[in-house]
Amino acid sequence: MRILVDVMGGDLPPAELVKGGITAGREAEIEIGFVGDPEVIRAALSQNNEKEGGAFSIVPAAQVIRMDDPPVRAVREKRDSSLIKGLLALKEGEGDAFVSPGNTGAVVAGAIFTLGRLPGVPRPGIAALLPTLAGKEILIIDVGATVDCTPPHLLHFALMGGSYARDVLRVPDPRIGLLNIGTEETKGNKLTQRAFELLEKSPLPFVGNVEGHDLLTDPAVDVVVCDGFVGNVFLKALEGGVSAVTGFLREGLSRGGVRVKLGALLFKPVFSALRSLLSYERHGGAPLLGVNGVVVIGHGRSDAAAIAGAVLAAKRAVEAGLNERIAQGMKGWGKIGS
Amino acid sequence: MRILVDVMGGDLPPAELVKGGITAGREAEIEIGFVGDPEVIRAALSQNNEKEGGAFSIVPAAQVIRMDDPPVRAVREKRDSSLIKGLLALKEGEGDAFVSPGNTGAVVAGAIFTLGRLPGVPRPGIAALLPTLAGKEILIIDVGATVDCTPPHLLHFALMGGSYARDVLRVPDPRIGLLNIGTEETKGNKLTQRAFELLEKSPLPFVGNVEGHDLLTDPAVDVVVCDGFVGNVFLKALEGGVSAVTGFLREGLSRGGVRVKLGALLFKPVFSALRSLLSYERHGGAPLLGVNGVVVIGHGRSDAAAIAGAVLAAKRAVEAGLNERIAQGMKGWGKIGS
Repeated sequence: MRILVDVMGGDLPPAELVKGGITAGREAEIEIGFVGDPEVIRAALSQNNEKEGGAFSIVPAAQVIRMDDPPVRAVREKRDSSLIKGLLALKEGEGDAFVSPGNTGAVVAGAIFTLGRLPGVPRPGIAALLPTLAGKEILIIDVGATVDCTPPHLLHFALMGGSYARDVLRVPDPRIGLLNIGTEETKGNKLTQRAFELLEKSPLPFVGNVEGHDLLTDPAVDVVVCDGFVGNVFLKALEGGVSAVTGFLREGLSRGGVRVKLGALLFKPVFSALRSLLSYERHGGAPLLGVNGVVVIGHGRSDAAAIAGAVLAAKRAVEAGLNERIAQGMKGWGKIGS
Repeated sequence: MRILVDVMGGDLPPAELVKGGITAGREAEIEIGFVGDPEVIRAALSQNNEKEGGAFSIVPAAQVIRMDDPPVRAVREKRDSSLIKGLLALKEGEGDAFVSPGNTGAVVAGAIFTLGRLPGVPRPGIAALLPTLAGKEILIIDVGATVDCTPPHLLHFALMGGSYARDVLRVPDPRIGLLNIGTEETKGNKLTQRAFELLEKSPLPFVGNVEGHDLLTDPAVDVVVCDGFVGNVFLKALEGGVSAVTGFLREGLSRGGVRVKLGALLFKPVFSALRSLLSYERHGGAPLLGVNGVVVIGHGRSDAAAIAGAVLAAKRAVEAGLNERIAQGMKGWGKIGS
């Protein structure tokens, strides 16, 4: 298996991303194709006592799509970017999956233009894995690929998210919930009311509406479905709530007297457990589901550990035959999804 | 001034709500009209060494709209409920404002049916006040009154929220932001892209898009505008993030050994400051803006302090002539809002 890794996108220097690819390649004994500036990649390989050839190869690309480039225009104009070169290599069969830490909008637009959509899937969705205090993780789809959704889009997100949870994450019998503003079936806006009906009629393991305030503490589902705008707002609000509290505690500590400082020191094991639990960055990548190929998007601030996690997620998706599973899942749907 | 208080709604017993009304009435030297079961209200008054007559009167109502009643049907069928009786009394001029801790959907539906909308305002919005770690509060509108919005709805939310911030909360020159999934002006879904254009063309002090993850720590605006579905999801996610962290720390404490417990004890001043800062329930009520009368919705779990806060918020809105200010604000808009 060969996973293509875009090492030019993201907020961090390419060397960090190459390091993550090497880590994952060694750990999982797979080949890694680094996409980007060959000189930079060769230097990073040698820093890590590796060289081009064997498990580590290079797909040259001269341009970089920056985090703040307008996605659609960047994809059209920067044909020699690491993002487009990587996707083209995937399409040509030079790799089994593609991982990019870059501009999310550009990865989505590039994947649609280059790979196309899976047959029968109207729009792709990004699935993000959320650690919870209950110990288990929940998958939320879509967190930003499709920001104007119809009810059938949500139905397909449910199918794809459910398949990812079952076939890749190995969650037995994943339960699917619809993110809404109340649990009763009549709650919500037109989109969620209609999506609720479609989900209920579908063969999917749909358990009903879920609300955001207890998903981190007491998640009753494994997969949460929502439109990409709402999912993105949800994720950022959650992050905002968590970081506000932890930031406040940190500040209270720095301003506090000796007693407070001693208290924080003694309380430290609890703080450390919290930090490791909620370090979203470490949770590898978010798969872009619904495109014709395995694509995983890393967090923009991806470091070596995060990119290694994203590569391993891509490997598991390839091994599980994720896209074939999704296609199978749609068989027998008849007209409910259209 | 006389404020009508629905004491039958909400999750807590009426006596608690009567107590809150008495507190606010005494503190602000205003009259309170308690709406609900006269016997229950009289008993609660006497518990607090007050009696009917003078500053405290009773508007009798025999029915109760429960928190889980379907809003529109409850409003149609329970004509003798405290919610509808209170709104009718407001409409008849028997009070200057109405406060209810009840079923939010029923308050919205009841207010629209009974009072009607303010001339020129297409849809009402609920404005919630959010404490932030930066010390200032931000107002977010809408958090659930109108869940299917058009761009002009958001424009009117901006006007009404801005007016509330300036005229009632006395924020000098409030800045308005649009809740979005990126700060660039091209970001977002169709609704926010078009609303951005309308807001930019308007005379309102619009500063651009804002994202959810730093609103609690570093708010660059005073008023945040969004559709009611997104606002509700946003608020619950924020709550979820905050309560997950605080819950985790509490659990770590209870499971921890002597050292951890001692640490938490010494660190307690910081925890206490955090709790008081983030106790949303205490932050009084959320005004329902855009209906023809001053209506304030209390949190469902409103206790006496919260309902007193809501009554005082209603008083300030009446004194500020809020609805006249909103009407003035729309003059000279020409066709931009339609």
